[in-house]
Amino acid sequence: MDSVTKSLATLALNPTSVSHSSTNSPAAWRDTLSATSNVPSSFELIKTLVYKPKTAKTATPVPVVVIARESASVNAAAIGKKLNLKDLRLASEDLLNDFFSLDKDSLSPLALNQTSFPKVVTVVDASIADSSVPLALHALSSSSTVFLSSSDLLKYLRSLETEDVKLQELDLQNLESAPAAAASASKAPAKEKEDAKIEGAVQIAIGVKKEVDFPTWYTNVLLKADMLDYYNVSGCYILKPWSFSIWEEIQKWFDAEIKELGVQNSYFPLFVSSKVLEREKDHIEGFSPEVAWVTKAGNSDLEEPIAIRPTSETVMYPYYAKWIKSHRDLPLKLNQWNSVVRWEFKNPQPFLRTREFLWQEGHTAHLTKEEADIEVRQILDLYRRVYEELLAVPVIPGIKSEKEKFAGGLYTTTVEGFIPTTGRGIQGGTSHSLGQNFSRPEMFNIVVEDPTDPTNQRKTYVWQNSWGLSTRTIGVMVMVHGDNQGLVLPPRVACIQVVIVPCGITVNTSTETRTKIETACDELAKTLKKAGIKAKADLRDDKTPGYKFNDWEQKGVPLRLEIGPNDLAKRQTLGVRRDNGVKNPLPLENISSLVSQLLEAIQSDMFKRAQETYYSRLREVTAWEDVVPNLDAKNVVVIPWCEVEACEDDIKERSAKASEPTDERAPSAGAKSLAIPFDQSRWTPIEPGKTKCPACGRDAKRWTMFGRSY
Amino acid sequence: MDSVTKSLATLALNPTSVSHSSTNSPAAWRDTLSATSNVPSSFELIKTLVYKPKTAKTATPVPVVVIARESASVNAAAIGKKLNLKDLRLASEDLLNDFFSLDKDSLSPLALNQTSFPKVVTVVDASIADSSVPLALHALSSSSTVFLSSSDLLKYLRSLETEDVKLQELDLQNLESAPAAAASASKAPAKEKEDAKIEGAVQIAIGVKKEVDFPTWYTNVLLKADMLDYYNVSGCYILKPWSFSIWEEIQKWFDAEIKELGVQNSYFPLFVSSKVLEREKDHIEGFSPEVAWVTKAGNSDLEEPIAIRPTSETVMYPYYAKWIKSHRDLPLKLNQWNSVVRWEFKNPQPFLRTREFLWQEGHTAHLTKEEADIEVRQILDLYRRVYEELLAVPVIPGIKSEKEKFAGGLYTTTVEGFIPTTGRGIQGGTSHSLGQNFSRPEMFNIVVEDPTDPTNQRKTYVWQNSWGLSTRTIGVMVMVHGDNQGLVLPPRVACIQVVIVPCGITVNTSTETRTKIETACDELAKTLKKAGIKAKADLRDDKTPGYKFNDWEQKGVPLRLEIGPNDLAKRQTLGVRRDNGVKNPLPLENISSLVSQLLEAIQSDMFKRAQETYYSRLREVTAWEDVVPNLDAKNVVVIPWCEVEACEDDIKERSAKASEPTDERAPSAGAKSLAIPFDQSRWTPIEPGKTKCPACGRDAKRWTMFGRSY
Repeated sequence: MDSVTKSLATLALNPTSVSHSSTNSPAAWRDTLSATSNVPSSFELIKTLVYKPKTAKTATPVPVVVIARESASVNAAAIGKKLNLKDLRLASEDLLNDFFSLDKDSLSPLALNQTSFPKVVTVVDASIADSSVPLALHALSSSSTVFLSSSDLLKYLRSLETEDVKLQELDLQNLESAPAAAASASKAPAKEKEDAKIEGAVQIAIGVKKEVDFPTWYTNVLLKADMLDYYNVSGCYILKPWSFSIWEEIQKWFDAEIKELGVQNSYFPLFVSSKVLEREKDHIEGFSPEVAWVTKAGNSDLEEPIAIRPTSETVMYPYYAKWIKSHRDLPLKLNQWNSVVRWEFKNPQPFLRTREFLWQEGHTAHLTKEEADIEVRQILDLYRRVYEELLAVPVIPGIKSEKEKFAGGLYTTTVEGFIPTTGRGIQGGTSHSLGQNFSRPEMFNIVVEDPTDPTNQRKTYVWQNSWGLSTRTIGVMVMVHGDNQGLVLPPRVACIQVVIVPCGITVNTSTETRTKIETACDELAKTLKKAGIKAKADLRDDKTPGYKFNDWEQKGVPLRLEIGPNDLAKRQTLGVRRDNGVKNPLPLENISSLVSQLLEAIQSDMFKRAQETYYSRLREVTAWEDVVPNLDAKNVVVIPWCEVEACEDDIKERSAKASEPTDERAPSAGAKSLAIPFDQSRWTPIEPGKTKCPACGRDAKRWTMFGRSY
Repeated sequence: MDSVTKSLATLALNPTSVSHSSTNSPAAWRDTLSATSNVPSSFELIKTLVYKPKTAKTATPVPVVVIARESASVNAAAIGKKLNLKDLRLASEDLLNDFFSLDKDSLSPLALNQTSFPKVVTVVDASIADSSVPLALHALSSSSTVFLSSSDLLKYLRSLETEDVKLQELDLQNLESAPAAAASASKAPAKEKEDAKIEGAVQIAIGVKKEVDFPTWYTNVLLKADMLDYYNVSGCYILKPWSFSIWEEIQKWFDAEIKELGVQNSYFPLFVSSKVLEREKDHIEGFSPEVAWVTKAGNSDLEEPIAIRPTSETVMYPYYAKWIKSHRDLPLKLNQWNSVVRWEFKNPQPFLRTREFLWQEGHTAHLTKEEADIEVRQILDLYRRVYEELLAVPVIPGIKSEKEKFAGGLYTTTVEGFIPTTGRGIQGGTSHSLGQNFSRPEMFNIVVEDPTDPTNQRKTYVWQNSWGLSTRTIGVMVMVHGDNQGLVLPPRVACIQVVIVPCGITVNTSTETRTKIETACDELAKTLKKAGIKAKADLRDDKTPGYKFNDWEQKGVPLRLEIGPNDLAKRQTLGVRRDNGVKNPLPLENISSLVSQLLEAIQSDMFKRAQETYYSRLREVTAWEDVVPNLDAKNVVVIPWCEVEACEDDIKERSAKASEPTDERAPSAGAKSLAIPFDQSRWTPIEPGKTKCPACGRDAKRWTMFGRSY
């Protein structure tokens, strides 16, 4: 950092700089900065990409350094064409190290200095000059950031120019697209070349298009809809009322349903001793890298570190062994609504991958496998209904492969969702059969006398299930339904279903008319509330109707009702649907039942549209060569699979290799098995012994969904 | 331990021994053992008390070592009288160290050996010989326990006898009581001399009397009512459905009430960085000794330790500062239902003092002090109603003294409860005004422009409140209402309000009659359920009616309905109230409304009885000499108090000294201020300048409750 400060100071630049914990992705960097003090209230991340052009093996490569706004899409092929360089590929870590003595997470325009600048081609996106907010640059370290204005950044870069080597200022957004067949690097989907910024977007809108910069779109929607805020412990987020109320709706519905099944709520401690945690080897192997350990209380060191539960199997089952003394104590069905901690080191993502998350975990013990199996499926069906009936998100119920099942369990069932924008699968909720793996004598020894044995000699180890559904549900809902105006809420989980906005009031409107309109809005809200509809009249006097429209659209309120002087005269209100923008006048007569019907229609249309999309992207594939192209086209492939674990590993490896990344932010990923759907009837029947697995040629067993995933 | 093993081995005794975490109270010891493996399923703790008789200063004291069952009451005066020794007082730690090189938590009969035995008088309770379960003895360490049968223990002790020094086997329960005036040591209440065991108690009953051994009674009630289990991390407990359902009732009611006040639910992370936690000095001073720290994740050390929230002021308020930009953002009213961790090192007690507990914490910000003050009292009144209307527990609303207020707040209001059996006050729930202490610029800087200032120049720091109610509520309810048959549940929070038991079925009963009776029970349950009454028919075929009566009485079900052949003939059922045992036949005609009325009567009678008791034990005291006798008589004293902090310290010290303990399990405690009741009209009006504080003689301000407390 000292060298940076010095070279900046020679240009009379003394930028703000902050230290923070080390970050390894744009999302984590933004996240961390947002939670650091002395950071400007708005800023833009700058990314620095280094490409290596195709070079003769004997020649020293001249890397291309591209400096762009984080939100900009970078088309390497187009840059290569412009610069007349062939086959730009993202540079290896070795090359970065050779040229800059830095890794990719520390890279920044400040890595360019009088020594390195002449050795590379430096491209700066011309649009940087348009940025009016401070730019965040790594200060040669992933745990340090400086803020420079765009003009100061350009001033710095230009200061490095020599007679021979000049800065290349290119308009990256409008570079002529490289022909599709030109180079393998041109595989970036055409859409990426669009400007991520939405034309004419007003200040409060989402700012970037869902199809172009999905990660930024996602976090912007969450922030602008007031669902969530970043927190100063990385990977932890604040659930604000607008999202927490969705969780409350899910809780209310699911809690009532499981109570009908005889499940009771309880609360087990947050802490688990290391000895107990480590009892089940496979299980702990699955969780131990992510366990958070308490080692101190006040100023005293604890005698033994104590873990924070990553899940409660080992917390609960020693007591199941104590409480279950007879078959008359079965079934035992307990659930708890709590939070668990899994200290993941991968990139955190709000709702989808967080270090602490809210969920319910059900743990049941049964006398027979049959009874346990039935419950696994009953619960899974409730999870399906949470997604489909509450969140209007289609899911496909199925069973996980051996590789993907719950650590230590017998088999895992899942409801598998799909994010069309990225073409990735997402696990929605899982209901596990643990079999007798945890009840065995060498494990927790949960045993009763077999009541069917006339000699009363035979022991039976209980059959156990565990099942969990988390706040991930909310993230999936946002990703599936949100659009470029922001969040779109399904009516059943919206904490405001209808917002009523007074309209057509101008400076010429009489006080009397204004009062009339506002009273009408207020009364309409009351009428709807009486009918059990969650309605709100937005009577803020410092905001225009246009502002309010935007505001509630961002927040995803399913239905807007406008009332202006003309509406009042006609005894009607103008209804505007959030999901499809359709406007219709609605007579105030009988308004409650009209609105109820409309909300139901919205709920059902949202589900149908999402389901059609999901189904259209599920591709029956029987030849290996069709797998990767289908994945690249953002589909999930369904193949007649052999169900051999080695084959799954192989599919993952081969599908990852096959697609080269052109942008660090869309890392290539291999496909893994998502689920073996229970309903196999959708696909051509598998002929035993004839239908072969397209990956390995072994006999196929069942149609299995494979895809890239979250 | 080696020496112990050796000396036991010479007697051919090879007892089971276990290691565990160190414990410093009988409750913690029992707790820890229950959670340790290889411990017998039932056992009895052995206590070892050491007394020092009055001895000439020049003489070497001969301590008296008393070995008794944990549940036995030990009357030191009576023992002294029997042994002809004067003024037995519990020995100091120094003396224990001199004689046995052990502290009181490690003390055990095994501390007696050939060296020490001749130097002391050893008394063993003759009733130990009656014990049929293994006896738990510390193995010269508070973290190690051996189990010996009573005969083996006696064998060991007798092996130490010499010509001159013999073991004293005394029947401690039937020792002649020392005359009341004999010695100060005889102040132990007469009741303590009763046997804690209830005569003729059947196996499943509570076993000890509430009035005699309250701590054991309390834990027995919780265990036998199936409310709770001990957990293998000390100070943490499992809330089983029977208690958790009470918490759910409280949640349901309170959550709806605060939503009416415009409060919204949210969720903030479990973790807080040390920097943020330490922002408010007074506040953190109050909590830091109890903070649990996470320092490791997986195998990696964290860069900085991260705290687990002990409460969320410092978690939330940095974000309040971010979110509150204008007076239009006020009031901000958020609540969360979560768990917090306070790693107390004092003796844990289920529900009352636990290292993790469930609660709600509300945090609100207001534009004006007036508005904030109103809310403080609104919430406090909801807390009062949770206790009085749901739990049938009377409380007294008031304000805390400066010494007892929330760390960092402006003032604290409380609903103060009372446990008649111990005569101790208990804080029921607190609603704090934080004033502007957390919003000040040097703190979290939560500021808006004052909308009443026409120049728009003036800034206003927001006025904040925080308020919390925890699962402690459940413990208070158990302590107030429980009796020697077990738990007594107020109908409004009972998860089963009515249990229906088929009766009068004998071997001679025809199958037809039996079926008729059982069908009638089942139908009655259905009828009641339809009317919204939580009813259950207990048709277990392997249990007698007597067993069922006991079982449901222990669990506190408010109303039992019995149906036998005669009842059926008369179209009636016999109703038995849990709270007072009153039996009445109830015609099956119109049974739902009769039962509803009866449940309401039970609820209201329970509250009235408890309130009468509380009021009768609130004593108006104006002379210092009446304070301690009133406290010793298990009252709360209400004095016209000066409200000077030094005087409160003084009262605590003087009231502690004045009463000497005679048993380690009833430590003397000074009185602290419990609350300054809002309703002062109950007591003689204070005359300003005339009425004096009985403790210090300064002018009295307000009537204030002082008492020993939890």
